[in-house]
Amino acid sequence: MSLNHLNEQDLHYLASLVDTARCSTGESALNTHSRDQSRHRPVRPEVVIWPQSTEEVVAILTYANERRLPVTGWGSGSSLEGNPIPVCGGIVLSFGYMNKILSVRPDDFQIDVQPGVVYKEMNHELRHSGLFFPPDPGAGATIGGMIANNASGTRTVRYGSTKDYVQRLTVVLADGEVIELGNRASKSSSGYDLLHLFVGSEGMLGIVTEATLRLAPIQEEFAWAVATFSSVEAASRTVLDVMRSGINPAAIELLAPECIEVINRCKGFDLTVSPTLFVEMHGASTVHLSEAMDLLQVLCGDQGGIDFRPGLDRAERDRLIEARHSLGEMIRQVHKDQHRIVIDVAVPISAYPEMIAFAREAAGEAAGTTAYIFGHAGDGNIHLVVGAKPDDALAWQAIDRLNQRMVMKALEMDGTATGEHGVGIGKRKFMPAEHGHSLAWMKKVKTLFDPNGILNPGKMFPD
Amino acid sequence: MSLNHLNEQDLHYLASLVDTARCSTGESALNTHSRDQSRHRPVRPEVVIWPQSTEEVVAILTYANERRLPVTGWGSGSSLEGNPIPVCGGIVLSFGYMNKILSVRPDDFQIDVQPGVVYKEMNHELRHSGLFFPPDPGAGATIGGMIANNASGTRTVRYGSTKDYVQRLTVVLADGEVIELGNRASKSSSGYDLLHLFVGSEGMLGIVTEATLRLAPIQEEFAWAVATFSSVEAASRTVLDVMRSGINPAAIELLAPECIEVINRCKGFDLTVSPTLFVEMHGASTVHLSEAMDLLQVLCGDQGGIDFRPGLDRAERDRLIEARHSLGEMIRQVHKDQHRIVIDVAVPISAYPEMIAFAREAAGEAAGTTAYIFGHAGDGNIHLVVGAKPDDALAWQAIDRLNQRMVMKALEMDGTATGEHGVGIGKRKFMPAEHGHSLAWMKKVKTLFDPNGILNPGKMFPD
Repeated sequence: MSLNHLNEQDLHYLASLVDTARCSTGESALNTHSRDQSRHRPVRPEVVIWPQSTEEVVAILTYANERRLPVTGWGSGSSLEGNPIPVCGGIVLSFGYMNKILSVRPDDFQIDVQPGVVYKEMNHELRHSGLFFPPDPGAGATIGGMIANNASGTRTVRYGSTKDYVQRLTVVLADGEVIELGNRASKSSSGYDLLHLFVGSEGMLGIVTEATLRLAPIQEEFAWAVATFSSVEAASRTVLDVMRSGINPAAIELLAPECIEVINRCKGFDLTVSPTLFVEMHGASTVHLSEAMDLLQVLCGDQGGIDFRPGLDRAERDRLIEARHSLGEMIRQVHKDQHRIVIDVAVPISAYPEMIAFAREAAGEAAGTTAYIFGHAGDGNIHLVVGAKPDDALAWQAIDRLNQRMVMKALEMDGTATGEHGVGIGKRKFMPAEHGHSLAWMKKVKTLFDPNGILNPGKMFPD
Repeated sequence: MSLNHLNEQDLHYLASLVDTARCSTGESALNTHSRDQSRHRPVRPEVVIWPQSTEEVVAILTYANERRLPVTGWGSGSSLEGNPIPVCGGIVLSFGYMNKILSVRPDDFQIDVQPGVVYKEMNHELRHSGLFFPPDPGAGATIGGMIANNASGTRTVRYGSTKDYVQRLTVVLADGEVIELGNRASKSSSGYDLLHLFVGSEGMLGIVTEATLRLAPIQEEFAWAVATFSSVEAASRTVLDVMRSGINPAAIELLAPECIEVINRCKGFDLTVSPTLFVEMHGASTVHLSEAMDLLQVLCGDQGGIDFRPGLDRAERDRLIEARHSLGEMIRQVHKDQHRIVIDVAVPISAYPEMIAFAREAAGEAAGTTAYIFGHAGDGNIHLVVGAKPDDALAWQAIDRLNQRMVMKALEMDGTATGEHGVGIGKRKFMPAEHGHSLAWMKKVKTLFDPNGILNPGKMFPD
């Protein structure tokens, strides 16, 4: 399938579809939309268009499909696998102007939004409603990007991923056709589930222009604890015990000592530099939470925990959450001279201690690199941030091998090549190993919905 | 697409693929597999085969696809919309021998099963593990049937539908190709979500031969209450209040007075014959449940509740659950001379009181019929069981109109034509109204996966 580059006539026509101010070939716009938060090679689009309505997206896609022009959706560029990098150039649709909350329906636990809404801002707007949108990837992600990636994060262990909160979508297909998927009832057995086909499809099957999201009630009581261990293995075994115990944490984050050191240094904490669990619990009563906290302390003690600080107040909790969310950025600051990648895999929870032990050993063998291990432990999700100087070819070979070993180990244990960062460019090569014969069916579905291959080309499937 | 009937050679070849005892053209086998629990016209298959392995299903489908023979999967025949009736004849694959629990993985909260496992028996096997499979349609449904239908039930308000518990599937496609979908990690952002495309597809895209299901921990404490109201509208408004309150019930079932009367008569209860809510709560502590129970009582009082019986013991609770689950069967017993249909729609919870009021009025206008209203109220799901003598043509015209009015009203309020019973034969005609343009895409997906249309033909799409 060959795609075209844009000519003068294309640019002229596309500009006529929107206000001139919302169609740009300026250096700054092209550069901003050429890279995400990953190390993947930046590629500039040929034009950036900021649509303002479904109708504009329809007009743009109809034209692009006829002319075989690549079209890639863009949220905030906070992804980590090159997911929205327009590797074939063409058009980037940037959703910064489609960032409205259209309707809050508290009685139905639903909200209607445009794809450019930033989830943190949406939750801020919802703060007096007693409701929130739980998936919490940390970065400044937009709802459109979260749907494209099936994003998740710290609260997923209790509340689920983005896919669990998508109720209705308006999607513009490659040829400009608009379809509505789902409805507002809290359940349905009507028709094939095309809705979830679009969640996690990385903008390759259609462009979401409106979404109805489910919301969850904010639990009345919160509790936080920080538990410290003598080994990462002991901490990871404790995670397994907690998941078996029925404590049902709202977050259980594992941080290796190198992460704690960075948090202390960059955020002025004085945490013990040892393997650590951050545990958050949500509940309807303090009695219940205090029982759960007692049980948590016992479980940490059983695994030889060396320190346990329960009952942090909200201010301290917020500082720790913020620190955990900024960890990637802090690691960047500490190693300004390095590039880095985040290896993101997930395994069944019973395999988590083994995966963690494997990661430590494998990272230790990668000469010339620095490594940070942390993860959404309750989901069996591990992040290994590993970096080296950009021009250190040997170190980057070691990192490539490490990435390969981590993913293959996760797949061996019936896990997945990506827990939450998506496939994008970086995980394409692992798709045959993970999906086997079903990968060919993913390609057939892609061809069905986007026969000319204009939507986010160059992603998901190996060349 | 024309399908063939089986000839002698086909029967001979198919019999050679399995033990003779597991391939039957006997009257009794054909009759048993000609009807479900609905009023839809029975149609006998031409042969019933009980496969014992994925490999046998592969061999059968490979042959059937080459010969264009219809193939319909069969669980226990407990469906209510004619979902597995082999309307084009052909082969029924009956999963009674593929009913093994293959592996319980308590640490991962997972179980591997064959599709013929009956979910109640599976939960009975799990009883000492502290885990259970929450979707609870009530009837003797098999896991394969529940996946085909995205089944749900009394506990869905808190725990979700079958789709929320399907983790991995082995699927045999129409041409005999086997694909594996999903993995064992609790989350993933890898590839398109083909897994959920098969959940709720009514056996039309492929045949599930193995499933990994997620399990939920059994909560330590249970509480039950029965609340009685002076009007169905007051009861339904209370449901809305409960859903807003954060009580998070494990079940909230609405029963109109005619249902209570049947329960009293058939099960020896002495419940007040008034609109009633059965409410179940699950929690980690009795303190929490008792607080929730107090709040529930206040909410019922606010809507003019006339009686409130909290804190039923387990034996009484089990009897009430059993009675609720047998309601359909009891209605059948009470009206032995009638046929009946269950109109099953769901609406956003805020629209539930209006939907209930509409149902009562519309049912009252359907002359010559008897009507019973109940539902999984917390999901906005309403069941209207309406019956008449089989040969009362006028009454059946009224029932058809009532069904039409109920579905169109639900769709008007952004609900769905079927909350949990599936499309099957009975809801086909409403699919264009519900899905609009996306219905054509469902057909394209069907054609992609089953180009010869051999899998469960005659369902989901209107002629």
